[in-house]
Amino acid sequence: MIYLDNAATSWPKPEGVYRAMDTFFRELGANPGRAGFRMAAEAGKVIREARVLLKDFFNASSPDHIIFTLNCTDALNIALKGLLSPGDHVITSCLEHNSVSRPLNRIAKSGVVYSRVPHNQDGLIEPEEIKKMIRPETKLIVLAHASNVLGTVEPVREIGHIAAEHGIIFLLDAAQTAGALPIDLKEMKINLLACPGHKGLMGPTGTGVLAINGLEGIASFREGGTGSLSEEPVQPSRFPDRLEAGTPNTVGIAGLKAGVEFIMEKGLEKIRSHELSLIDLLLKGLLSIPGVTVYGTQRAEGRSGLVSFNIEGWEPQDVAAVLESKFDIACRAGLHCAPWAHGFLGTLPYGAVRFSVGYFNTESEIKTAIEAVSALAGY
Amino acid sequence: MIYLDNAATSWPKPEGVYRAMDTFFRELGANPGRAGFRMAAEAGKVIREARVLLKDFFNASSPDHIIFTLNCTDALNIALKGLLSPGDHVITSCLEHNSVSRPLNRIAKSGVVYSRVPHNQDGLIEPEEIKKMIRPETKLIVLAHASNVLGTVEPVREIGHIAAEHGIIFLLDAAQTAGALPIDLKEMKINLLACPGHKGLMGPTGTGVLAINGLEGIASFREGGTGSLSEEPVQPSRFPDRLEAGTPNTVGIAGLKAGVEFIMEKGLEKIRSHELSLIDLLLKGLLSIPGVTVYGTQRAEGRSGLVSFNIEGWEPQDVAAVLESKFDIACRAGLHCAPWAHGFLGTLPYGAVRFSVGYFNTESEIKTAIEAVSALAGY
Repeated sequence: MIYLDNAATSWPKPEGVYRAMDTFFRELGANPGRAGFRMAAEAGKVIREARVLLKDFFNASSPDHIIFTLNCTDALNIALKGLLSPGDHVITSCLEHNSVSRPLNRIAKSGVVYSRVPHNQDGLIEPEEIKKMIRPETKLIVLAHASNVLGTVEPVREIGHIAAEHGIIFLLDAAQTAGALPIDLKEMKINLLACPGHKGLMGPTGTGVLAINGLEGIASFREGGTGSLSEEPVQPSRFPDRLEAGTPNTVGIAGLKAGVEFIMEKGLEKIRSHELSLIDLLLKGLLSIPGVTVYGTQRAEGRSGLVSFNIEGWEPQDVAAVLESKFDIACRAGLHCAPWAHGFLGTLPYGAVRFSVGYFNTESEIKTAIEAVSALAGY
Repeated sequence: MIYLDNAATSWPKPEGVYRAMDTFFRELGANPGRAGFRMAAEAGKVIREARVLLKDFFNASSPDHIIFTLNCTDALNIALKGLLSPGDHVITSCLEHNSVSRPLNRIAKSGVVYSRVPHNQDGLIEPEEIKKMIRPETKLIVLAHASNVLGTVEPVREIGHIAAEHGIIFLLDAAQTAGALPIDLKEMKINLLACPGHKGLMGPTGTGVLAINGLEGIASFREGGTGSLSEEPVQPSRFPDRLEAGTPNTVGIAGLKAGVEFIMEKGLEKIRSHELSLIDLLLKGLLSIPGVTVYGTQRAEGRSGLVSFNIEGWEPQDVAAVLESKFDIACRAGLHCAPWAHGFLGTLPYGAVRFSVGYFNTESEIKTAIEAVSALAGY
């Protein structure tokens, strides 16, 4: 099988991720919490090491500012609901995943107001447009680092600096970029980063991260046992306990740690460079096929690891079905949980076909995929 | 090592759980969502089978009424925050874990009121006492099936019937009992059951369940992508999508499924009977040691799989440390995230030592543990 659904979840994982999880689960399966016995303490040590690793990886303000969550959506909900109060204004875009849009719509019912910044034909947001939308009550800017439909990488450093100048919190949804593009919270002036553990970071499902850069004013989303200050009737205020409650996904975090170790060992630059060469090949190939419409920028450099397209005369779901049955290619067709982006592209209600690459894809796989699309397009 | 911390997380797991996770992760690691390709569809099938299995296991109203969560705390937060509005009254107990008390205290700030029903010396709640506390605005009764400190099993069937008669929702925290004691939502008139996947159900950390019995009026807690109705700007109202958002912990759910299959294959009765014989042995042994105070009921039948105790002249943390260093026994000392229960026992601020058994413990291990406590007590 040629797996081109890495934007949904990366697969396969590095061998070390499978092994780390199985070994941890069998040998260190205890609950870290506050128990003093060796196995619990060693399980706690692995979790701590994962925090330190991710703190370094994203340049967050402290290992305690690495919050482990169920998934990226959970991290985004924690951030949005912990930050926003009635009367607050939020700037977001038209390219957001439902993981941002739906919680925002929920909060909007209680008096939070949001505006959507426009973008150009390629899906690029002009930082100056954001500046124009700032109001005295603007509390937050929340944006996807790269749209999961268009793949366009947004100028987050510039946006981060604008946010900082205006004392506005900047929350980045790095679902498509964490582990694939360099992200430096301090340097890019990002206050909060939400990402899944199971995509670019190469960990398992059931893991997500909310990384914090020096932000203190965020209320708890989920209260419960923390193994700390157990006599307190309310959630402890210190991090990470404030935003983590109940038994963490220890087994998953052990796998996530192994995934990030793999990335750091290979080097993010090398991973990005490999994925970029695949995207370049894919883009050029698809653009050269008559009857194929490719969405988003035509420059590989301005993209995360995905390309969405349609073939004239085909519904995207049928394209995906035939790609699998005839060519053993696994990809994703539809709206990709981002209806506004498809509305902009004029691809409602069926959406598009999306190819998304990962570190383990090869040039030869991409060539096969291009040939397959070519065959379907009748060339 | 003699592992007696099963009330925190069960360990080891059945071999099939380790294998199911590793195989699933390696072979079916795709994101179920809406993609049509085989691997994604097969991953989705495993998740669906787990829902059907748990629906049968708890006698919930439908497989769609099995909600997968991060942990039991997440399930409790989803239930409490999805149900309660300002002005509502809640009946709870003095024996709750912080996973119930802390979210209740959080919601109390916005005008939800709660009362704590009393219990007797053994930690048993008299259903008639609950009846007395019912007010016109009582919306919910939330109780632990068994205290994680005292182990006392509460008369949930009677309480469920009282709740049903009064049109009050009954939410059961089955953190200590799911997979260890029979629970039938319909027969016991339980509307909502929250439990972890990694304790009695023998699955991995990172999994929890909220099982619903015919209850519709519960608002979403976490909004985001569901792979369904992607064009909708708000969370879909149908279950399980209403209460699940983002990529689920597919790998963990595959492990949880294997855990529940193990229980169903062995038979819950057999598992309970084995644990009961261990608890009976443990109780009798500890009660016979001078200077040892055992908390809770002296009848094994009225207990979940744990016994908390203290040794005269010892701080519980020191007992646990010596039990490990000298006898290789892993247990948990402290407040167990249940400060009210320890307040009642007069064991603040240090708490107690807790031994908690699981299916894989043996009589010989329990005898060793009793001898170890005896030696520490000076006998």
